[in-house]
Amino acid sequence: MNYSFAEQTKNFKSSAVRDILAVIQQGNVISFAGGLPSEESFPLREVQIAYEKVFSSGKSSLQYGLTEGYKPLREAIKTKMEGKGVVTPLENMLITTGSQQAIDLFSRVILSTGDVVLTEDPTYLSALQVFRSYGANVVAVNSDEHGMEFADLEAKVKTYQPKFIYIIPTFSNPEGKAWSIERRQQLLELCYKYDVLVLEDDPYGDIKFHDEEEYPTVASFDHGQSHVVYTSTFSKSVVPALRTGWVTGPSPIIKMMTQAKQMADLHSSSIDQQALYFLLRDFNLEGHIQHLRSEYYHRMTIMRDYLNKLEPGVFTWKEPKGGMFLWVEGQEHLNTPTLLKSAVEKGVAFVPGAPFYVDKPKYNTFRLNFSHSTPEKIKLGMDRLVDVLLSPITI
Amino acid sequence: MNYSFAEQTKNFKSSAVRDILAVIQQGNVISFAGGLPSEESFPLREVQIAYEKVFSSGKSSLQYGLTEGYKPLREAIKTKMEGKGVVTPLENMLITTGSQQAIDLFSRVILSTGDVVLTEDPTYLSALQVFRSYGANVVAVNSDEHGMEFADLEAKVKTYQPKFIYIIPTFSNPEGKAWSIERRQQLLELCYKYDVLVLEDDPYGDIKFHDEEEYPTVASFDHGQSHVVYTSTFSKSVVPALRTGWVTGPSPIIKMMTQAKQMADLHSSSIDQQALYFLLRDFNLEGHIQHLRSEYYHRMTIMRDYLNKLEPGVFTWKEPKGGMFLWVEGQEHLNTPTLLKSAVEKGVAFVPGAPFYVDKPKYNTFRLNFSHSTPEKIKLGMDRLVDVLLSPITI
Repeated sequence: MNYSFAEQTKNFKSSAVRDILAVIQQGNVISFAGGLPSEESFPLREVQIAYEKVFSSGKSSLQYGLTEGYKPLREAIKTKMEGKGVVTPLENMLITTGSQQAIDLFSRVILSTGDVVLTEDPTYLSALQVFRSYGANVVAVNSDEHGMEFADLEAKVKTYQPKFIYIIPTFSNPEGKAWSIERRQQLLELCYKYDVLVLEDDPYGDIKFHDEEEYPTVASFDHGQSHVVYTSTFSKSVVPALRTGWVTGPSPIIKMMTQAKQMADLHSSSIDQQALYFLLRDFNLEGHIQHLRSEYYHRMTIMRDYLNKLEPGVFTWKEPKGGMFLWVEGQEHLNTPTLLKSAVEKGVAFVPGAPFYVDKPKYNTFRLNFSHSTPEKIKLGMDRLVDVLLSPITI
Repeated sequence: MNYSFAEQTKNFKSSAVRDILAVIQQGNVISFAGGLPSEESFPLREVQIAYEKVFSSGKSSLQYGLTEGYKPLREAIKTKMEGKGVVTPLENMLITTGSQQAIDLFSRVILSTGDVVLTEDPTYLSALQVFRSYGANVVAVNSDEHGMEFADLEAKVKTYQPKFIYIIPTFSNPEGKAWSIERRQQLLELCYKYDVLVLEDDPYGDIKFHDEEEYPTVASFDHGQSHVVYTSTFSKSVVPALRTGWVTGPSPIIKMMTQAKQMADLHSSSIDQQALYFLLRDFNLEGHIQHLRSEYYHRMTIMRDYLNKLEPGVFTWKEPKGGMFLWVEGQEHLNTPTLLKSAVEKGVAFVPGAPFYVDKPKYNTFRLNFSHSTPEKIKLGMDRLVDVLLSPITI
């Protein structure tokens, strides 16, 4: 038969990154494409112990749980958030299947067809897909290295009356950029002035390279918890397979998202939530994050040093202050989808930057991930990549 | 600020059952309200061993996984489905966070505002909520104890041109009813004739009480896998906390649902999926299900024998052939929401039947769950309930 799909599916797009990952997983290619954390750093033994504690607590640990999430875990996250300057009552805290589900549920309860969402450009492509899947129009705001440019942001807020502004202010995906404190505050002032919501997506905030630098969340300035919906995840700081994230924000919004989650999947895996609770209680997560910071910084510097070998001016990039990504821009005529084919032939992969753009894709950009590959593999892969980048087609 | 929600949220409703559960969990009430499986029967030791096997397989077990789900688990489910007469290529098999997520993702890719879904009446209330949250109009089809009545079904298919027909043909929620084979085949013939999809929700199919009786899935008659989308879960046959279900159906639909799942949460917990794979491989799940069948049958008979003590004609019910529920109808003037208050005062709870109805709620109905409480608690709870049912307000 001819299947007749929902109107909104015309806005569906498969993730370009996931499609590339599927191809690359075959063969001997060193991949800087995915946004994967370092497997060597996974606290396997501690995770295992945490699950043993769940099962020791008896059969009731295997029963259905609450939609909001496992209460002791929510309490632990509430305390963690207080450390980030975000004070929230427990009922404004919802556990999600990764922060991806928080983005989806928030969009589901906020967006109607034709609504506008403001974002940076480029930004996280799976967030763009979600917003569009609910019929939203995404409008890009001009940004520089410090964040969204205030004048353009205010003009677009006035013109488009957006439902919300989506940002990844700390070590963004794909650019690895961190907003200045001033820009964070300016954004929030603007949201107060025009009554616009912010969706602050913060999966990478814990992974900062320089101890002395501070990156307060935008949510931490929103003392009444009235305008910022904040989401983060343990996928990057603990392990991705747990698929455990959380979201906090204004009470009416979290309530509505909880209803949406009840319809979406009743609740996320409660075995995983309980294990994560024991992990947060008994494992030195802060020490583990410190380890990740220094390890990822080390890996980033190796990659950066290779990029430094390239002729200045041909490729430009900024050294990230944290996170998992290096963002590179070639000269205008460079076509990175074509370049990727040559790269894969040489045994290395990256993600072309075009799918991260809102409407005017720059085909001369690409993203490199430095967290997943070991230092040895980064060296091997960058040897190959520099070869490709120095070949005639790129310059 | 005043939060402006998406248009669709006007169709959101919190689950009446979940709200009742929240109240009942306080205090000493014996609850026949929730749809919970027996905790005593959870194979805790075997689940624990399965997780140990996941962690023994190394750190890569903790990395991100595929949206479609863990491949060896999908292969194991494919084999299980073949045992149910449903032959499907692996790519038509998607792992979901319980069958609830399958219902939600299917609705998300199929339903636009104003589309019609046909259902039984009463039916699973969280499915009704999902369909309505996507703007669908739900239309009830007349049913008897054998399933939907063919003439009314055909008339409504012609009149409403529904996007799909939602059914729980084997030990339904809330009625505990099983469709006859003839009605299953008639339904599918009609779907072929008018090109309508079926969403077959089968969480309870494994829990049948009488070995000699056969309840072939509707999907098993759909040899070309063209018209039936089938979903089931391990929440009832293994443990709910795993939140692992699956869905199989026509390739274009499963592909679209996979895209929706990528946006919804990237993938379900892969630790849980791997553990479930080891459980299916090494644990005698069939033997476990046999145990559940006889245990739940035993519990049902205790409850049934109490209902038999009531005056004939005042309350009517059918003995279920499987599943987890007994459905009771009182005399017309009975108001079960009021009755529930008296029951809770006496220390016992049930779910009033009204929220399960599509548009004409019968306030004289209620649902009893017999799977969750031990035989001792069923006796104690039914002593209390019979007291309430025999009191003047009910007769």
